[in-house]
Amino acid sequence: MIQKFGKTLGFAALALGMGLASSQVAAQDNLEKVMKERGLTQKDVLAAAKTYTPTGGRDEFVAFASGGQSGQVIVYGIPSMRILKYIGVFTPEPWQGYGFDDESKEVLAQGRIKGKDITFGDTHHPAISETNGEYDGKFLFINDKANPRIAVIDLHDFETKQIVVNPILKSEHGGAFVSPNTDYVIEAAQYATPLTHDYVPLSEFNDKYRGAVTYWKFDRKKGRIDESKSFSVELPPYSQDLSDFGKGPSDGWSFTNSFCTERYIGGIENGRPPFEAGCSQKDTDFVHMVNWKKAAELVAAGKADKINGHDVLSIDTAVKEGILFLIPEPKSPHGMDVSPDGKFFIVSGKLDTHASVYSMEKIFKLIENKDFAAKDPYGIPILDLQKSLHTQVSVGLGPLHTQYDSTPCVVYTSIYVDSQVTKWNYCEGKVLDKISIHYNIGHLMTMEGDSVKPQGKYLVSLNKLAIDRFQPVGPLHPQNHQLIDISGDKMELLYDMPLPLGEPHYAVAIKADRLKPVNRYKVGWNSRKDEKSAYRARPGREKIVEENGVVHVYGTLIRSHITPEIVEVEEGQTVSFHLTNLERAEDETHGFAVNEYNVNLSAEPGKTVSATFVADRAGVFPYYCTEFCSALHLEMQGYLLVRPKGTKASGGAVDEGQTYTQDDYTKQVKTNNDTQAVIDSVVAFITSRNFKDFAPVVALVEDATDQLNFAADAKKKSEDYAAKKDFHNGTLWAQQWFQYQVKAADIGLRAKTYLEQNGAVEVKK
Amino acid sequence: MIQKFGKTLGFAALALGMGLASSQVAAQDNLEKVMKERGLTQKDVLAAAKTYTPTGGRDEFVAFASGGQSGQVIVYGIPSMRILKYIGVFTPEPWQGYGFDDESKEVLAQGRIKGKDITFGDTHHPAISETNGEYDGKFLFINDKANPRIAVIDLHDFETKQIVVNPILKSEHGGAFVSPNTDYVIEAAQYATPLTHDYVPLSEFNDKYRGAVTYWKFDRKKGRIDESKSFSVELPPYSQDLSDFGKGPSDGWSFTNSFCTERYIGGIENGRPPFEAGCSQKDTDFVHMVNWKKAAELVAAGKADKINGHDVLSIDTAVKEGILFLIPEPKSPHGMDVSPDGKFFIVSGKLDTHASVYSMEKIFKLIENKDFAAKDPYGIPILDLQKSLHTQVSVGLGPLHTQYDSTPCVVYTSIYVDSQVTKWNYCEGKVLDKISIHYNIGHLMTMEGDSVKPQGKYLVSLNKLAIDRFQPVGPLHPQNHQLIDISGDKMELLYDMPLPLGEPHYAVAIKADRLKPVNRYKVGWNSRKDEKSAYRARPGREKIVEENGVVHVYGTLIRSHITPEIVEVEEGQTVSFHLTNLERAEDETHGFAVNEYNVNLSAEPGKTVSATFVADRAGVFPYYCTEFCSALHLEMQGYLLVRPKGTKASGGAVDEGQTYTQDDYTKQVKTNNDTQAVIDSVVAFITSRNFKDFAPVVALVEDATDQLNFAADAKKKSEDYAAKKDFHNGTLWAQQWFQYQVKAADIGLRAKTYLEQNGAVEVKK
Repeated sequence: MIQKFGKTLGFAALALGMGLASSQVAAQDNLEKVMKERGLTQKDVLAAAKTYTPTGGRDEFVAFASGGQSGQVIVYGIPSMRILKYIGVFTPEPWQGYGFDDESKEVLAQGRIKGKDITFGDTHHPAISETNGEYDGKFLFINDKANPRIAVIDLHDFETKQIVVNPILKSEHGGAFVSPNTDYVIEAAQYATPLTHDYVPLSEFNDKYRGAVTYWKFDRKKGRIDESKSFSVELPPYSQDLSDFGKGPSDGWSFTNSFCTERYIGGIENGRPPFEAGCSQKDTDFVHMVNWKKAAELVAAGKADKINGHDVLSIDTAVKEGILFLIPEPKSPHGMDVSPDGKFFIVSGKLDTHASVYSMEKIFKLIENKDFAAKDPYGIPILDLQKSLHTQVSVGLGPLHTQYDSTPCVVYTSIYVDSQVTKWNYCEGKVLDKISIHYNIGHLMTMEGDSVKPQGKYLVSLNKLAIDRFQPVGPLHPQNHQLIDISGDKMELLYDMPLPLGEPHYAVAIKADRLKPVNRYKVGWNSRKDEKSAYRARPGREKIVEENGVVHVYGTLIRSHITPEIVEVEEGQTVSFHLTNLERAEDETHGFAVNEYNVNLSAEPGKTVSATFVADRAGVFPYYCTEFCSALHLEMQGYLLVRPKGTKASGGAVDEGQTYTQDDYTKQVKTNNDTQAVIDSVVAFITSRNFKDFAPVVALVEDATDQLNFAADAKKKSEDYAAKKDFHNGTLWAQQWFQYQVKAADIGLRAKTYLEQNGAVEVKK
Repeated sequence: MIQKFGKTLGFAALALGMGLASSQVAAQDNLEKVMKERGLTQKDVLAAAKTYTPTGGRDEFVAFASGGQSGQVIVYGIPSMRILKYIGVFTPEPWQGYGFDDESKEVLAQGRIKGKDITFGDTHHPAISETNGEYDGKFLFINDKANPRIAVIDLHDFETKQIVVNPILKSEHGGAFVSPNTDYVIEAAQYATPLTHDYVPLSEFNDKYRGAVTYWKFDRKKGRIDESKSFSVELPPYSQDLSDFGKGPSDGWSFTNSFCTERYIGGIENGRPPFEAGCSQKDTDFVHMVNWKKAAELVAAGKADKINGHDVLSIDTAVKEGILFLIPEPKSPHGMDVSPDGKFFIVSGKLDTHASVYSMEKIFKLIENKDFAAKDPYGIPILDLQKSLHTQVSVGLGPLHTQYDSTPCVVYTSIYVDSQVTKWNYCEGKVLDKISIHYNIGHLMTMEGDSVKPQGKYLVSLNKLAIDRFQPVGPLHPQNHQLIDISGDKMELLYDMPLPLGEPHYAVAIKADRLKPVNRYKVGWNSRKDEKSAYRARPGREKIVEENGVVHVYGTLIRSHITPEIVEVEEGQTVSFHLTNLERAEDETHGFAVNEYNVNLSAEPGKTVSATFVADRAGVFPYYCTEFCSALHLEMQGYLLVRPKGTKASGGAVDEGQTYTQDDYTKQVKTNNDTQAVIDSVVAFITSRNFKDFAPVVALVEDATDQLNFAADAKKKSEDYAAKKDFHNGTLWAQQWFQYQVKAADIGLRAKTYLEQNGAVEVKK
């Protein structure tokens, strides 16, 4: 009987099996108590267990969400739903030094439009680079709707490397999505405008306003978009929307849906019905199909026109060459999703209750047979909706975006108005399950659900409203991403995650083990250009030189001092700080801020960063490391002195605030010797264990060895001064020797604790 | 026997008590399975249960953490450790429109230094306003270390309202902390500089460089700092550090510690030992004690000198008047924490192993008796360390910051080098417990641990290094805040929380129910000034007017259109958009972005926001709502047309892309009537329930009623056009009528679901 209960009661069984140690009994008692106190149901505890990730644990998937109007990319772990990073993309962000150091300013400057800074982006759709249609974890692309641009993020260091400005569009939405081998990144227009960027009155909308779809050529080897090899296909002034690339049998094609094919022009201020009415009157809008592989060949063959210096295939050429077709779709759709096998795509109209499954086979047959239902006003052949469809399924009110499961034929569609996710089978056209979300879901995301190999397991519902889900924080609410378990037949809500900054529109999630980021740079690295910095400095080789009227400071950063510590210039001079972080230890980032000059840098281990400014005000400007990098981080400081124009450097001797004697020296040396004894005991512990089997400890030992070498250096200086009876400097260098010892001890203790907690064993010498 | 197991095995007992329904058995089985799959221990499950917060749940505490160099404030819930908001403070942030709308630009402009923008802040220490020493949840203050400034955040809407620039300091650290009734906010210097802001060579450091402590007068009624009533006390060029206000018996005093009282001036570039060595040579630094109440009286009595137009009490005056004293403290301290009863303060030296508990009673007696040990080089009386101490306790290597428990005499100290938190009793001088953290803790935070009434329960360890704790995301790591359960005798680690943006230095946590934020503004509200906006517009009263050469657009935002939809100006004109969000529904924020002109606004319900810019380029610039606010949010769009300089408005009639007939009209009206039937059934459901007992539903019903009134309006227009046989406009207005119906249905369905899920009951009419 006991055994039977033991078997049915999971948690109990576990305790029984483990022998009911008193701590386990305590845990049991406590769980019941905690559940009561916190009002948790068993289902809640199960959800907690499915998402909770203990210290040091890893998530199975990593999600990249657009940061909406924040202009950034949000990185979070699944299932823990903990946000790991906001990556600076279109908006300057000082913690990362993004838009503050000269190197990243160059990246942001690429995003200028007609010479003017744009200091935000309305990011919408991130895309992970693919190889043969599978996520490869190398690059991430994201678009800006407000000012048509695409950014390239390198996932080896999670930094933005490039921003390209769309040369013809003034509004976009349907990007970024990648072709199965990341040859191209697509960006489709949204609100139509004249492609030449001229002023054209709205009365000429139908004739002179246009949409387009741009294919950005990605150079994988360089990790950059090649603007010169990129091109666009002109489209009618239908508000183009989301896009996707074909794969497998549909590889070579791209698909872009649209709304407001009514070409309605608002004017509520003149008593006309607003855009929302005029743009949703027709029952259907159009899917745009483009044969991009053939389009690229046509561009190569010189069939494109140049608009603003950019290759554009006109509608006429596209129609003549047979690379552009339209297919009706339920009105005001949002979401264009090609199936993993490339045989179908699914579209839903937001004002409809149906999801429409289109058959590539049927579509290609219609095209092959030139079986067109009509032509649009611009001469583009229109395929018949019914002849193109595989099936239509009633999934709920306000269907929007569909993502694929690991089980063939199973998909999930977000239902905006009903605030639900519908699970259904698109092969058989059958609804399988529904779950309520909170509230008004926009896009949704399954794991690698955009790729040829969806991973199933989890779904995230990107809700547009949180309303009452979280502790109130004023009129501007966080967004709510809800994690849903899709491993069983029934969907189960696991977790509500507030998004504290930005409104993500779309997200992609990759298996965590596909990402292989580095944790330090080669020493003296310009991370934005991925090359050695011309401004790197080596320890002991720091210098201040005037070149072409600019005072260049080639400095270094290391726990816990900045070299140089004093920089004096004349008012009006341009100063250029170049700082190399000499650390090799993981997570030993140093910052650098200068008072009044709006200088704020972040230098991760190995990185060289620069800040150039005109020292146009005389005075005394403290600088310091902004990262709490060591016990003495507050002492990691310096002064920029700007003497008034026309004055000479004072050069007066420093008036010491404190002087030290032989007694001070002797006392400090004794402290150091005592400290060394502690260090030696820690070193003995570590080296007597199999520490080489633990990568983090190997790294720590490497770092500690560095510190001890620095200590030996300072010790020598100290002893040299003492030998010359200069006990003042002898004492100070002895103190510096001690500081290195403290750092070595800090690292050593961390290594020792790691070994103790991770089951290291004693080894024979 | 079974019963005995039942009693000991918490979870099992629960199931037994509940009768073992099959779903519960499933839950049990699942828990065991999940634990096995995810490698969770019982302790992990317990921690999960202690932190997991189910959908719609509330946290017990809300934490405000500095955002470090991000320049922002981070808000998160405890124990769920979910980040709820990043509040824009010193750094522009587009999601919030902060630094993008004219209103918030004015706030940031207050933070300019000598006319130049500073686009970041190095935020360190947030402080919640207090009443009688208890957190009152009304205001939050935070400092900027890099460019000495204090920001005021109003917690009624979580927005930054004011930034003040310190008139004499060029570096600070010891702020913001508040007096027990928030009369004053303290800000203490860090790196000494000439207070006049003149250039002075470092050779004159001892004579002409100074520190200071500034007391900012806070006007509670206005919710703003009154700069004219604020003052400073000059201090020696010791690097002042953290501060705290006295309370109870020590009310009227403030305490500020320091480092580098050696007054060492680095110069590693010239072969001198670096600051870190010279600044940590002496065994002790100084606590600065200031009688601020008396200081305020002295200032009022005209005893202050004006420096840069600001009242400063000189060291000489402060000494003469007996309001300034020094007490030695173990070197390089960090953390200055007055006990809840105001009888003690605790300080620890970062290079020491002790925490030092000072007795206010002893200190005041020494002052009363003029029992001074010495004077410093600036004539300030120094109290004897030993005579001032209550006790010193060995707490670990690298102690830093101490926070108070709800149990009298119990405190927690962060131990940087040992990577631990030590729990100890400061009355009895006894260590009670230690726990390892990951890694290198800086500050720590207990619940309301800064106030006269600490709440115990939880402690957060603000670690400086995360290293291997999280999924790698490149060389720049997130920070790691670890939640620790302090409700029992032993501390228990509950949760690792990555901080995705910024390096928080300090945090404060308040009981959630002390916060009473609003979720909407009065209509037409300038939230930064807390007054009606001069630029508000009412529905139907939108207008475009030229005033003093500026084209003012008085517009409105509502699901799902912007009024006006078309704005045409001449190249070179200044355009000023003023947009009022007419929504009354919680969380119905609208955004507004204009292509190319770097315009990006966020308008929460009721808010009026403005964007002013010179339309210096001719062309067509789409604008749109950046928030996914409704099913037709993509259609919430418009065009800014900038015609070339010297040209006239074209005024040509719009060429309709689509025209509608009587059939279209009839069809649309039928759809609308069908939709109305659905709405009626939802309304019938809601009104037959006790919906008035559910505040969120009452708000939804209010919103739905609004939408239905709009629908009625559009219906009338539609019918009027149809009556005149204008079926084109009749159809379009019928569509608009339908759009309002869709919104009403959306809201109604949400209300219905809420009632169903929250146990509403049928009521008799």
